[in-house]
Amino acid sequence: MTNGGMGSCKRSATGMNEIYKEYDRCWLRYDETRHKNCLSDLGDAVKYLYFNKSGEISRNAYTELIEGITRMTGSRPADTSSLEGPCLVLSVFGMDPKVDSMLIEEDMQSMQVEGFLIKQVNKPPTARLLITSKSERGLLYGVFKFLLLLTQGKSLENIYLLENPKNKLRMINQWDNLDGSIERGYAGRSILYSDNVLAKDRERITFYARLLASIGINGIVLNNVNVHREETRLIDDRIDIVRQLADIFRGYGIRIYLSINFASPIDLGGLSTADPLDMDVADWWKKRADYIYSHIPDFGGFLVKADSEHRPGPYTYGRNHADGANMLAAALKPHGGLVIWRCFVYNCQQDWRDKVTDRAKAAYDNYKYLDGSFDANVILQVKNGPMDFQVREPVSPLFGAMEQTNMMLELQITQEYTGQQRHLCYLVTQWKEILEFDTYATGEGTPVKSIVDGSAFGREHCGMAGVSNIGSDHNWTGHYLAQANLYGYGRLAWDPDLSAEEITLDWIHCSFGNDPVVVDVVSEMLLSSWPIYESYTAPLGIGWMVNPNHHYGPNVDGYEYSRWGTYHKADFQAIGVDRTKVGGTGFTAQYREPNFLRFESLETCPEELVLFFHRLPYTYRLKSGKTVIQHIYDTHFLGVEQAKQLRSKWESLKGRVDTERFGHVLSRLNEQVEHAKEWRDVINSYFYRKTGIPDEKGRTIY
Amino acid sequence: MTNGGMGSCKRSATGMNEIYKEYDRCWLRYDETRHKNCLSDLGDAVKYLYFNKSGEISRNAYTELIEGITRMTGSRPADTSSLEGPCLVLSVFGMDPKVDSMLIEEDMQSMQVEGFLIKQVNKPPTARLLITSKSERGLLYGVFKFLLLLTQGKSLENIYLLENPKNKLRMINQWDNLDGSIERGYAGRSILYSDNVLAKDRERITFYARLLASIGINGIVLNNVNVHREETRLIDDRIDIVRQLADIFRGYGIRIYLSINFASPIDLGGLSTADPLDMDVADWWKKRADYIYSHIPDFGGFLVKADSEHRPGPYTYGRNHADGANMLAAALKPHGGLVIWRCFVYNCQQDWRDKVTDRAKAAYDNYKYLDGSFDANVILQVKNGPMDFQVREPVSPLFGAMEQTNMMLELQITQEYTGQQRHLCYLVTQWKEILEFDTYATGEGTPVKSIVDGSAFGREHCGMAGVSNIGSDHNWTGHYLAQANLYGYGRLAWDPDLSAEEITLDWIHCSFGNDPVVVDVVSEMLLSSWPIYESYTAPLGIGWMVNPNHHYGPNVDGYEYSRWGTYHKADFQAIGVDRTKVGGTGFTAQYREPNFLRFESLETCPEELVLFFHRLPYTYRLKSGKTVIQHIYDTHFLGVEQAKQLRSKWESLKGRVDTERFGHVLSRLNEQVEHAKEWRDVINSYFYRKTGIPDEKGRTIY
Repeated sequence: MTNGGMGSCKRSATGMNEIYKEYDRCWLRYDETRHKNCLSDLGDAVKYLYFNKSGEISRNAYTELIEGITRMTGSRPADTSSLEGPCLVLSVFGMDPKVDSMLIEEDMQSMQVEGFLIKQVNKPPTARLLITSKSERGLLYGVFKFLLLLTQGKSLENIYLLENPKNKLRMINQWDNLDGSIERGYAGRSILYSDNVLAKDRERITFYARLLASIGINGIVLNNVNVHREETRLIDDRIDIVRQLADIFRGYGIRIYLSINFASPIDLGGLSTADPLDMDVADWWKKRADYIYSHIPDFGGFLVKADSEHRPGPYTYGRNHADGANMLAAALKPHGGLVIWRCFVYNCQQDWRDKVTDRAKAAYDNYKYLDGSFDANVILQVKNGPMDFQVREPVSPLFGAMEQTNMMLELQITQEYTGQQRHLCYLVTQWKEILEFDTYATGEGTPVKSIVDGSAFGREHCGMAGVSNIGSDHNWTGHYLAQANLYGYGRLAWDPDLSAEEITLDWIHCSFGNDPVVVDVVSEMLLSSWPIYESYTAPLGIGWMVNPNHHYGPNVDGYEYSRWGTYHKADFQAIGVDRTKVGGTGFTAQYREPNFLRFESLETCPEELVLFFHRLPYTYRLKSGKTVIQHIYDTHFLGVEQAKQLRSKWESLKGRVDTERFGHVLSRLNEQVEHAKEWRDVINSYFYRKTGIPDEKGRTIY
Repeated sequence: MTNGGMGSCKRSATGMNEIYKEYDRCWLRYDETRHKNCLSDLGDAVKYLYFNKSGEISRNAYTELIEGITRMTGSRPADTSSLEGPCLVLSVFGMDPKVDSMLIEEDMQSMQVEGFLIKQVNKPPTARLLITSKSERGLLYGVFKFLLLLTQGKSLENIYLLENPKNKLRMINQWDNLDGSIERGYAGRSILYSDNVLAKDRERITFYARLLASIGINGIVLNNVNVHREETRLIDDRIDIVRQLADIFRGYGIRIYLSINFASPIDLGGLSTADPLDMDVADWWKKRADYIYSHIPDFGGFLVKADSEHRPGPYTYGRNHADGANMLAAALKPHGGLVIWRCFVYNCQQDWRDKVTDRAKAAYDNYKYLDGSFDANVILQVKNGPMDFQVREPVSPLFGAMEQTNMMLELQITQEYTGQQRHLCYLVTQWKEILEFDTYATGEGTPVKSIVDGSAFGREHCGMAGVSNIGSDHNWTGHYLAQANLYGYGRLAWDPDLSAEEITLDWIHCSFGNDPVVVDVVSEMLLSSWPIYESYTAPLGIGWMVNPNHHYGPNVDGYEYSRWGTYHKADFQAIGVDRTKVGGTGFTAQYREPNFLRFESLETCPEELVLFFHRLPYTYRLKSGKTVIQHIYDTHFLGVEQAKQLRSKWESLKGRVDTERFGHVLSRLNEQVEHAKEWRDVINSYFYRKTGIPDEKGRTIY
């Protein structure tokens, strides 16, 4: 067994471990490394630590470094005040002239404020390893990077590693409610709140802040976008909860944000309106912002779900969303705060008989015409697809459509429609496809990642937001392997150019060590898991074949006769919604060329999305030569076999992974196999019963 | 306008009215009658009242009589101690020799203990009208009957009316939970409980007891058959709640019963088992019974849902249900208590792929072989159909199958699957069909009503139970007209021979007065409403096409791929489950001849149940000459038109019914019409999309 498993948490090399005994350390295990040779590259450098104590974040960076090295090497670096001998040097630029002198002009120019530099100065035996940044936050990121390198046993010889984050905003959205529930949470209760007060276990919140900082997260929205009565009061008499959380997250470089209730002037202020153009309303919000900043001077800003799924918003008053967002932005501007405005706006009272309205078009229709109307400290936060985090959707056409507007990409780390952390579904591969999707917004080569990092149109406030998947479960994420989704999200938010494979290996090394068999198998499992989940659930871009409300498990007509705008229109001969311009809803025309024509034409439409854009007879032959119906049957039979293979692969790791994690993941995979059969049989039976077309291979359909 | 409407409740003829102002008086309105001539039949008899004050129930009968006459005539009868002049005489037989002497031997012989006699003695001007019984309870029933006659303006000349109830047990089951919620309740919160204590408004509970007594109910189960943690304690430290309720209901002749948790010896007693054959368990229940009766000496007994839908029961310990029931019966026997044991036992973890298991067979399979094994104070309570209160089901084959077992019929007054008191669905017509269904248990002419009244097999403890439809809503039942279901249930429990038409007229007279237009229209509406509801929802005996869990609204596949044993198996060419002996699950064979063959043969199977018993192609021609699919289309289009007609009929009563009730019912009917369209369009679209067979009439299907 490579790693000691949970038991290893109980040894106390630094005296700091006991506080973690109630929960898993995720990728901050710092298990004793078998690659001590990598340290030998630096000779005695890791035995001594030169640290110019400064602010709280730096001190946390120092503590992290000490703990990491001590746990991995078994011996604690000694503090030194001398820069003459071999040592690690940890210092923010500008704090210590002796350290600064180790840098050259080129280092300084390339390093941005949140970036860091890891650099060897001198050769052994007097090699010094410098970790520096222009900011405390950058210093912390540098430490985590250094510890990652140690974990992987990467050669540190003559290291010169300078990294800057690609995205300015790297956010986590918590959908936590004050009562301790989590909307779409699949890993227990909130670690932040319980019974409308702050959760007692502050150490766990602190550890979460460490986890987030270790992957580069620099902002967190503390409450659910659906802001109910209790959460509305967070900007009022519950502000102390926010202040206390800000104090925790600040130490790890994470600014805090709140989801707000657009009707707060009515609900809290007793005004008769929340009209954004009403002077009293604007004034109320201005005073409210002053109040918040008097408690939390570095408060990040507001996240707003307005006019969506029965939430209040500007439409109530005949105003548009720029009116609403700009009014809030004016209140926050004097304090440097941001308004992050969600674009998840659509008609959730649609008549299923209505064949004209197309929910997929809603975000574009609601926002495109407002491009240029939003103030400089407003950002639009757009879900990756035009619907709602389905297992497969095209990229939202809003990306690339808004040239004069700050944009953020919203991803869902929590697996609402992708197996709810009971199925293995590693989403980094999906997210990579999204980030690399070429919008053609400034001609060929304008991928989504260049929109959300602001570079395509030179926007200042941009970035990524991910809906958290953690909760009070021992292992944080329900499924142990779902930790990889949180990890991967942070790494991509820092650098969308990273490959899924690279991120995956990093997570495995940190979580399972360096046994090449474990690394290979877990990597294969993760990287193949999203397509497998897709194959036994909803292939060809059909979505919403799930049970209503909780969204777990198959129900082909679950959303078919509903008011949510989510229809596949399957009948005895065809399935899918024609969203072409020529004969359908015209959604395709929201894309720029050549995407528009690519989706518009059945010839060029990517097959994995073909039923999203086109309505096809079951007998239509796909490029594979298979009919649509046979493709449905085949993928569902195949998907179950692939799910079984996932399980077999994991079983092959018996003895190589600690028994607790081995057993936990195996039990989830057993559930996945059984539930994949349920998906297979329900989907296949539904379509067989509807079409009467038998499986060419004569397999069992009910 | 015939009646004064709600406003009339505020006038205070007796000084007793104010306490009702918060809620409707239902059929105990006693509105001023326009038929004063009926009183003149008796001359001055109603101006004087001779009452030999005795027990609490008699005093309540006296108060009811005074109030009723006063409200209807505008003047209060004077008490008299003389039997010489014209007067009303109210007395329990044996209490007053002067009164008893007015009776002849024949009266005495015909009258059973709960029966009553209303009899004119002498002619005007010295006519005396005698209301008497062998019991206080019977006296109360006699008073209510007399007031009903007054309300209707029936001639009282030379009246001689002797009535005995046909069923010994006439029970109401409350599915109320202590927290104030009601399982399958559609009329607000519980009137009995709130926040785990007795509800504050005892007057309302008392009025409910009056309502129940007025229709002859003599037993009430105070809590939900699903007994959760809090309710388990009703036989323990919460016994005082039960005692207080018993004190209220006792005054109206209603004994109280409790649903119990079969695992109470574990949950309350700290035993390690609830095995009914374990001596400690039996002893625990014996002591528990002693404890209950020490608080409520006239406690009725236990209602038990065991081994059903995850409730604990004897099967946990490898025992049968006679073992379980008899053990409890032994504990209650010394006190004269009853065990009412529900037969709603089936596999609720069925695999939808399993084509052999048939939930319809479960009750018979679980109980038939135990006939003769149950103790004398055990009663089996059987739902009317083999499934679960669907809009149309065959009668349960258990009726007539158990010759040596006490049997009760369970009906659902609350409209779980029949429109949830948002749709008008008068169930008395359905219940009449059930009661009149010939089981052939003792040859031709053994209707269900003769099983449940005990006469067919000479059983002692028998009767009917109805799941209540009332709650905290002002009008008690959500839909005003749903009051008629509660009323009709009670009347049928008293006398299953009554016709639906007769009961309906009585309810209308009491509720709306005697305007013949109102009487005709409301009667038509009620009597046609069940077939109308059936037509736009689930015709031909298909059930379960509803949304899971809450059971409201159409969802054809809602229970199709579930674990509840509820399948229609619709595919592109056929629908229905073959339950024949010859080719199907064999459910038909649970019926006695000739029912077995009648259901078995497609030729003779009643068409309204044809898809319950047979699987048919959509193109099968029914006796009407229509195909199955065309029948589905036609009934759904027709049903919506009929729902509109219900609304038109009601609208024709504008000005004849008080504005509050007129508006309330109209708003429900508007909702019904809209929701009927939803049913029509979803069902028709589902089947059209599945079959591809167009409507012959070319109407719109989506």
